[in-house]
Amino acid sequence: MDYDVVQAARVSTKGAEAIDSDGATEGLINFLMRDRHGSPFEHNSMTFYVEAPIFVAREWFRHRAGWSYNEESARYKELAPVFYLPAGDRNLVQEGKPGAYRFTPGTFAQSVVAQAEAAESYRKAWNAYQSQLTSGIAREVARNVLPVGIYTSFIATCNARSLMHFLSLRTQRENAKVPSFPLREIAMAAEQMEAHFARSLPVTHAAFEEHGRVAP
Amino acid sequence: MDYDVVQAARVSTKGAEAIDSDGATEGLINFLMRDRHGSPFEHNSMTFYVEAPIFVAREWFRHRAGWSYNEESARYKELAPVFYLPAGDRNLVQEGKPGAYRFTPGTFAQSVVAQAEAAESYRKAWNAYQSQLTSGIAREVARNVLPVGIYTSFIATCNARSLMHFLSLRTQRENAKVPSFPLREIAMAAEQMEAHFARSLPVTHAAFEEHGRVAP
Amino acid sequence: MDYDVVQAARVSTKGAEAIDSDGATEGLINFLMRDRHGSPFEHNSMTFYVEAPIFVAREWFRHRAGWSYNEESARYKELAPVFYLPAGDRNLVQEGKPGAYRFTPGTFAQSVVAQAEAAESYRKAWNAYQSQLTSGIAREVARNVLPVGIYTSFIATCNARSLMHFLSLRTQRENAKVPSFPLREIAMAAEQMEAHFARSLPVTHAAFEEHGRVAP
Amino acid sequence: MDYDVVQAARVSTKGAEAIDSDGATEGLINFLMRDRHGSPFEHNSMTFYVEAPIFVAREWFRHRAGWSYNEESARYKELAPVFYLPAGDRNLVQEGKPGAYRFTPGTFAQSVVAQAEAAESYRKAWNAYQSQLTSGIAREVARNVLPVGIYTSFIATCNARSLMHFLSLRTQRENAKVPSFPLREIAMAAEQMEAHFARSLPVTHAAFEEHGRVAP
Repeated sequence: MDYDVVQAARVSTKGAEAIDSDGATEGLINFLMRDRHGSPFEHNSMTFYVEAPIFVAREWFRHRAGWSYNEESARYKELAPVFYLPAGDRNLVQEGKPGAYRFTPGTFAQSVVAQAEAAESYRKAWNAYQSQLTSGIAREVARNVLPVGIYTSFIATCNARSLMHFLSLRTQRENAKVPSFPLREIAMAAEQMEAHFARSLPVTHAAFEEHGRVAP
Repeated sequence: MDYDVVQAARVSTKGAEAIDSDGATEGLINFLMRDRHGSPFEHNSMTFYVEAPIFVAREWFRHRAGWSYNEESARYKELAPVFYLPAGDRNLVQEGKPGAYRFTPGTFAQSVVAQAEAAESYRKAWNAYQSQLTSGIAREVARNVLPVGIYTSFIATCNARSLMHFLSLRTQRENAKVPSFPLREIAMAAEQMEAHFARSLPVTHAAFEEHGRVAP
Repeated sequence: MDYDVVQAARVSTKGAEAIDSDGATEGLINFLMRDRHGSPFEHNSMTFYVEAPIFVAREWFRHRAGWSYNEESARYKELAPVFYLPAGDRNLVQEGKPGAYRFTPGTFAQSVVAQAEAAESYRKAWNAYQSQLTSGIAREVARNVLPVGIYTSFIATCNARSLMHFLSLRTQRENAKVPSFPLREIAMAAEQMEAHFARSLPVTHAAFEEHGRVAP
Repeated sequence: MDYDVVQAARVSTKGAEAIDSDGATEGLINFLMRDRHGSPFEHNSMTFYVEAPIFVAREWFRHRAGWSYNEESARYKELAPVFYLPAGDRNLVQEGKPGAYRFTPGTFAQSVVAQAEAAESYRKAWNAYQSQLTSGIAREVARNVLPVGIYTSFIATCNARSLMHFLSLRTQRENAKVPSFPLREIAMAAEQMEAHFARSLPVTHAAFEEHGRVAP
């Protein structure tokens, strides 16, 4: 798929000769990335099936340009009782000020509180949901009590350009030119997508890394 | 603002003469709406400040083209304890099959269940949220227990064309050419926006009604 | 690729079960098309390489949502002397009024004028272009004299939803619910794209035809 | 309008308190621009009426996100005989290689060739256009001979974010972090738009300058 990028870019300078043209791929892709010529990176398509908590889906769906979505609907389908609990390595304490927060692990006691409060609250919410459904209340009313920590699923389609924009905001790396402070849970999903991207368009991904992880 | 529509449309046929041109507005707007010439309806801008439950915001933000958003962030701000409870006239029971659901009021007993389960579940979720915040746990972790029925706030900017597309999907009217089955709660917001739209661009709104509430 | 549409739609109602699900495709696609559920038609991608006169490319590039382009640049590349002349079956005379034009063949004399004037004017413009290039004038200045009838080439990527929107405006058919008055030359290109679309997503294309050629 | 940016950004951190909030504007806008928080810059709208050669309109209309257009149509309206001739200060000679062209003034002889060839070619094209129209040939066929140097007119609506993206690509400044090589004629239009932008949103414009003219 790196070749699709090259071919699209060459139409600008070679017209019809670009089709089935041969030649160095890396130099051209590096140039496009460095000087932010973005459109050649749009002629490709990646579709992901994602399972994530609602609070992650909410951040994801803010990405409009170059993204398409279809999501599981709590109006049409009873949701499954799958909830997000922070794993042991999830930093729990926020320090600093808006725009420059840092996160630290938190104490063992805090970890216990976070797990226990979430688990208990999720359980009660689920019971309230089930109780309403059992009473014959519509799914779209009963679901109002479900927490943003419950899992949803969706299909998301993007291209290399819109994906790089997503990755620049939803991952956190030292070599990034522009700072980003993504929510840990969306970063975990973004890391998986980036691994797929690096396998599919290795030259494009390397250029993205080389030029500071700024979407062209 | 109806005049902005007319002026934009006239640039096609009159070029420079369109600017400050005079003449009948209604006939032209009716023609544009009927034959679905959409772009002249984009040269205007409406900004709304909205307070709504998260489950409403979730449907709203699916609208990408011609919409801009900024939403209150539960990562940066402690949310307020304002929750959605269905009013007495909210139909509670869903009948029929997917794609053609009908809603009926439900019994008094169902109404009691819906209110009681939601109120109790909301209260417990709020306590679990507060308990975590008190323990020093980050807002972005503590909020995972909050229900989709809690209120959020956002600013939304659109134009007449993207608003009509929203209204065609998020209201339910007998004179609509294409059926829609909006969630009642987003329809309540859409009705308020339509009232504003009808006041701001009365000729455009009348043509929207006249031609079956299909966005041009 | 019809299956991609079905799978995306089923995520709404089945969540994870949609992936690798089986079952009737036609009924669901017909329902989506009829009631204008558009997003499931976005999870696919088609890339076209197009050679067309500049006046066709100009209309094409008005399509923004769901379209990506890279075009041959007259700044970076000397254009080739390929020009558009109307074929014998191109109607030459416009009758009626704006919004409801009809076209008729024109007389033999008119056909001669159209061909002769265009051929002669193209020849002179080409000479003026070459003369400037020979004098060492930059391509991007010399090209100003080239007519909109000269051929350009571009790569265009879209999905089934954005393509159907394009086809609804750029073809003219009796079974279309909304009238369209496309330029003949863009309709010729659109017909070829529609043939490709019908082969790639036959069920989706049949539903598009069945429901009046309105993009969902 | 700088205040609209601030208010939109504050909804993230203050919710309802953002509306009619007071406080420093510059610090917040600088922060948003520096760290590339783009969405608060979308809740505003600017509409421009532009007269420019077709070759300029062609580059302009490549901008899709956050832009709306309506253009004079040569199908529906006879164009006016207004053509672009390079002014005396337009560099005529291109040196260097793709991606890093430099332009130099050219000799007096080259200037004479450029002016004379263009003027003569325009005149002949116009005559061929008029001759066809006189013969009763449709405007949309006759116009094929018109050069890309003829003037068109259009209405363009954008917001501060989409305008900054346009300016980053279509102007050339020493303080720009990303190099751009705009066509001189589109840069002339962009300069005028930037002057308007600087008057309307002075704080936003100053921050754009301060942070290297990168659209947030």
